Amino acid sequence: MLQKAISMIGSLDQEAMNKAQQRLDSLIKPPGSLGVLEEVAVRLAGITGNHKPFIRKKTVVVMAGDHGVFEEGVSAAPQEVTYQMLPAFVHGVAGIGVLARHAGANLIVVDVGVAVPVDYPGVLRKKVKAGTGNIARGPAMTVEEAVQALEVGIETAWQEIDQGTDLLATGDMGIANTTPSTALLAVFGNLSVDEITGRGTLINDEVLNNKIKAIEAAIKVNKPDPADPVSVLAKVGGLEIAGLAGLILGAAARRVPVLVDGYISTAAALVASRICPLSKEYMLGSHLSGEKSHRYMLEVVGLKPMLHLDMRLGEGTGSALAMNIVEGSLRILHEMASYEEAKVSDVDESKILK
Amino acid sequence: MLQKAISMIGSLDQEAMNKAQQRLDSLIKPPGSLGVLEEVAVRLAGITGNHKPFIRKKTVVVMAGDHGVFEEGVSAAPQEVTYQMLPAFVHGVAGIGVLARHAGANLIVVDVGVAVPVDYPGVLRKKVKAGTGNIARGPAMTVEEAVQALEVGIETAWQEIDQGTDLLATGDMGIANTTPSTALLAVFGNLSVDEITGRGTLINDEVLNNKIKAIEAAIKVNKPDPADPVSVLAKVGGLEIAGLAGLILGAAARRVPVLVDGYISTAAALVASRICPLSKEYMLGSHLSGEKSHRYMLEVVGLKPMLHLDMRLGEGTGSALAMNIVEGSLRILHEMASYEEAKVSDVDESKILK
Repeated sequence: MLQKAISMIGSLDQEAMNKAQQRLDSLIKPPGSLGVLEEVAVRLAGITGNHKPFIRKKTVVVMAGDHGVFEEGVSAAPQEVTYQMLPAFVHGVAGIGVLARHAGANLIVVDVGVAVPVDYPGVLRKKVKAGTGNIARGPAMTVEEAVQALEVGIETAWQEIDQGTDLLATGDMGIANTTPSTALLAVFGNLSVDEITGRGTLINDEVLNNKIKAIEAAIKVNKPDPADPVSVLAKVGGLEIAGLAGLILGAAARRVPVLVDGYISTAAALVASRICPLSKEYMLGSHLSGEKSHRYMLEVVGLKPMLHLDMRLGEGTGSALAMNIVEGSLRILHEMASYEEAKVSDVDESKILK
Repeated sequence: MLQKAISMIGSLDQEAMNKAQQRLDSLIKPPGSLGVLEEVAVRLAGITGNHKPFIRKKTVVVMAGDHGVFEEGVSAAPQEVTYQMLPAFVHGVAGIGVLARHAGANLIVVDVGVAVPVDYPGVLRKKVKAGTGNIARGPAMTVEEAVQALEVGIETAWQEIDQGTDLLATGDMGIANTTPSTALLAVFGNLSVDEITGRGTLINDEVLNNKIKAIEAAIKVNKPDPADPVSVLAKVGGLEIAGLAGLILGAAARRVPVLVDGYISTAAALVASRICPLSKEYMLGSHLSGEKSHRYMLEVVGLKPMLHLDMRLGEGTGSALAMNIVEGSLRILHEMASYEEAKVSDVDESKILK
């Protein structure tokens, strides 16, 4: 299924993009003056192949998983929180529950690797493994398990798309998951662990020090090779990160845009972009989080964040908030009048930058 | 009316803010992890005096005016565009027409200083003067006219608030209006005109040079004294800028939050903050525009932009888009569950930064 998804990922429809850009350039505004709104509208045209695309159904997918590296003392929250948060997601009273509802989006919660059995109604049961191994001592999972978790994501994307979703957004739940995310950034970005490791839920110096040591150990023990991205994911990644990387690849395969949330989701986007570089074209950056090295991570993937809200909750809270902006960009394309239609005088071409 | 409005502006309700912050700190998320969403919710509590505030009716106010300095060759768009855009606003097919509708907001269009007579149905006729004087040669307007234009803004705010508006947003229309806005920034920020003058609708080097010379001349000829903000506004400002500054003061007087749009609106916010420093507490930054010195201007006022979309259209397009975020912040306050309610384990206090 992974190979099939990768083989389905094609390039953007340049003709639809040109047509959308032409329409945007004809509207009653200085050319390009709606900035990222115009870029997003053009990209959606290229993704969908429709120069006037619509969004009819939006879905946020939260992948949940636990992390063996928790035992290195890298987190301030107890590990059981991963499990305890699931009913709050389903009942719509967690941050993402509220903001998905605010966005008019469905919320799908998937157990891809929670450490304990999950039987809440409403949580999709697709567990590959009950939490990863401790990456400071060995691999997070086998390559087979990483592929399985990627395929959980692909399958979830395809199921939602089959039911009409035309805008996906990523979200994560997993205590300690900034640790493997930072390991992935260090490996793929060839960056110093010491410099990029952030404080997550504002951990103190002692916990931060444990976290840096755990990530350095993970890289030393597992020797991940950035040229083999699935094996990097297996060695120092996480089950929910793999699930989200799969979700992105699945969306790209079906030509559906996917909003990438914060630090953990961007780590998944990084993995997806290394497995299939073309998948990048189907991703939209949502927000710049408060987590220390999110800015570098976005740069390594090539994503531009629309919202600067200093949020660091994850769950898809940033990607859900960005949905309204994506919809606004399409309304500009559909609903604004052209200079000709509105009988407005255009700018003097001799006075503007070429 | 101006004096009355200023005298009505009071401080935020600290008790309501504390109560809102306490509730936010009890919710199932690491403390502060919703960043600016939490700050906005707390500020709205302080503004309204209600620790669980609501937004029921949103209004974007576009103030339109023309600029005598146009004749110095500072703009790429013909001056008649100010007038021509008004029907597009009213009919909802301009950028702000589309994005106000997307936000579920009313759109009010006010002629406070368009150069030609305006008789479109739907445009509020509150013209103080048919365009400003050329600031490169003399004052934009008299102090009496500046006060009148400020009062148009106050009156408009109060009319809308009387009809139920509880979130206001600023917007502008006025060809050449980045020129007086930059003059205001230079005067109040004590900054070099050469360094802060931007390209507006992407004017070329020749037009940019005209613009810099016109602003330098405006300051030399008018000798504005930053200690007397209303006279600065009269000397180098604009009628729509005055109207928007008045709108902000009027909102603050009635304890209604006001979203500040881009470069021109932020210049109005700067004027309002110099007329009455307390008014700053009632302003919310919306976006960082693509105009060169918007970042400095926001810093001088003390506003934090939520959206980074590289937009440079004005009209209220950024402030309208930010309404959804403000509403999201209140939904967090109202709808998220606490650790106790959701039976989730809290973070270990001994592991987080103090």
